[in-house]
Amino acid sequence: MKTLDLVLPDTRYPIHIGQQLLGKAELILPHLKQARVAIVSNTTVAALYLEPLLSSLSQAGVDCLPVILPDGEDFKTWETLNQIFDALLAQRCERGTTLLALGGGVIGDMTGFAAACYQRGVPFIQIPTTLLAQVDSSVGGKTAINHPQGKNMIGAFYQPKLVIADMDLLDTLPERELSAGLAEVIKYGLLGDADFISWLEQNMAALRKRDKQALAYAVEHSCRMKADIVGQDEKEQGVRALLNLGHTFGHAIEAGLGFGTWLHGEAVGAGMMLAAEASHQMGWLSEADVARVEALLQLAGLPTQSPALGDAAWLSLMAHDKKVENGEIRFVLLQSLGHAVVAKLPAAELEHTLHSRFVQQSA
Amino acid sequence: MKTLDLVLPDTRYPIHIGQQLLGKAELILPHLKQARVAIVSNTTVAALYLEPLLSSLSQAGVDCLPVILPDGEDFKTWETLNQIFDALLAQRCERGTTLLALGGGVIGDMTGFAAACYQRGVPFIQIPTTLLAQVDSSVGGKTAINHPQGKNMIGAFYQPKLVIADMDLLDTLPERELSAGLAEVIKYGLLGDADFISWLEQNMAALRKRDKQALAYAVEHSCRMKADIVGQDEKEQGVRALLNLGHTFGHAIEAGLGFGTWLHGEAVGAGMMLAAEASHQMGWLSEADVARVEALLQLAGLPTQSPALGDAAWLSLMAHDKKVENGEIRFVLLQSLGHAVVAKLPAAELEHTLHSRFVQQSA
Repeated sequence: MKTLDLVLPDTRYPIHIGQQLLGKAELILPHLKQARVAIVSNTTVAALYLEPLLSSLSQAGVDCLPVILPDGEDFKTWETLNQIFDALLAQRCERGTTLLALGGGVIGDMTGFAAACYQRGVPFIQIPTTLLAQVDSSVGGKTAINHPQGKNMIGAFYQPKLVIADMDLLDTLPERELSAGLAEVIKYGLLGDADFISWLEQNMAALRKRDKQALAYAVEHSCRMKADIVGQDEKEQGVRALLNLGHTFGHAIEAGLGFGTWLHGEAVGAGMMLAAEASHQMGWLSEADVARVEALLQLAGLPTQSPALGDAAWLSLMAHDKKVENGEIRFVLLQSLGHAVVAKLPAAELEHTLHSRFVQQSA
Repeated sequence: MKTLDLVLPDTRYPIHIGQQLLGKAELILPHLKQARVAIVSNTTVAALYLEPLLSSLSQAGVDCLPVILPDGEDFKTWETLNQIFDALLAQRCERGTTLLALGGGVIGDMTGFAAACYQRGVPFIQIPTTLLAQVDSSVGGKTAINHPQGKNMIGAFYQPKLVIADMDLLDTLPERELSAGLAEVIKYGLLGDADFISWLEQNMAALRKRDKQALAYAVEHSCRMKADIVGQDEKEQGVRALLNLGHTFGHAIEAGLGFGTWLHGEAVGAGMMLAAEASHQMGWLSEADVARVEALLQLAGLPTQSPALGDAAWLSLMAHDKKVENGEIRFVLLQSLGHAVVAKLPAAELEHTLHSRFVQQSA
């Protein structure tokens, strides 16, 4: 097991990465304020992993309240969040009760937001069960639910007390979810580490075969980059915005098709392709660079062509992005492979991007 | 105009107290990140005060989006909160858009919570229009909505950028609301300042006649005490809990009768009466002390007898209090008039309190 530390002005917390971690109650116990947790999961994950977690915590004397939600991005809503509050209140959970998120990005984001709001804040712990959640959403304290008009529009910055990334939980991850997680892994290379891009090109086959060493390295490297960036800029006043590479386009895809149609990671993959194309339109990336991004996404099993939303829908959906400033959309673009910046994209370059071969032109 | 400063580890903000402040855009302008605000109010308050605020800000070049909600504690719900989010998204409000709460405690709490959650946090400003909001809820950053099972159960600690308490806005306050606000004013005396209790006994008639000097003094003194306590303990880990004097009983009354039946301040008044009686049962307050609390509440036009909820309902409703620890309810009690403590109340003393003359014994 390796442990990274995420250090913030007000707090710090460990990120444990390794194998056979789910049954180790001793990793969790030091972080509990009372011997009581609410384990929030979904029907799919609970069927696989609730029992081992529950029994190890119960044996350690911890009272566990499972809260099992429906599975999928389309349930990342206030109604589902309220199911958590209802359960916590019905069971008289207190300010000292810890919420434990056992699931992917949707469960982690919703559990974290529930923890931020319940009685104005209770502790929470992340046990991510997807690659995407392990490398990205479980780390850094961004929590949220969706609004019909925009992804993650309602939420909070609220840090967990602990993150446990157990590679063994990836054994049961569907192929499509593994690829979606790889999109966020590729993101770290593109936005800030050209050497990691090369490593990914060489090790993508091993990652897709779920080689545990390769996965652990990718998770550790991604979490290290994320911890470093979040440590510098917890509330996204500056550098943290770079972690949104591919997300302005990606969120438009998710909202435009209806949440849950494409996986978040798939939308981010196609969105990074558009960010690369836009960076080429800006004269920053060469055609060879763009082709290299395309090849890497394809190696990861990701779509490189966005769906046909129509220009008006693209613009309207992207206008709800959280990076919009005085009505102007700001994009994360690539000055070179491994070096991202936040920039405005002139209308002509945006239009060329949306009319490139990386967007389906009719449904 | 007097200005107090609330100083916290991460931030500080001014509380302006005086007359003719509503039309002074220059108080607000220095705190805006962009020349755009969403003014959240309710139908009652908007009819009286939206126009002067709107025209002074508009003349100063600020784009104003009014969001007018229904009036009353029973609308302090997720559904109403969502109306704010819908309006903000429909008008493409950004992370730099400031929310401006123009109303009483319900509007202030909901607007603050909306600001805490919209795009994970946007700035907000409090312009409280009731005495209760001016002396208590607008200051200190507690924001929330109600859950059917408990008052203020879903919320956040989220500080405003500025509070403006304009005594002129109290001219139109209904008698009953004025009395409700006086309950929170009396609270400050009981919990921490015996001299202020004497001042209130001498000046209650002037306060109820809305003498502006007396009101301004009461607001300033209350805000000064609150700012001092919140400055020591923003997240209610310790001393801030004393501000909950009367609230454990009071919240049970509000939830038990249905939110909006009694005003929050009325429930707090009757709740403080029970806290005084419980403190007498503990041997801390004399009968004369209890009679003095009763007389002061009556002078303020407040109820001193709680409604008949039935013992089982009292206990069940109070078990949802945010101060509950390991299943035990903790109360704010009075060791003497002007000196509150957080304490457990043994079952016998609680029963005597609930069976005292300060609780109606049958409906």
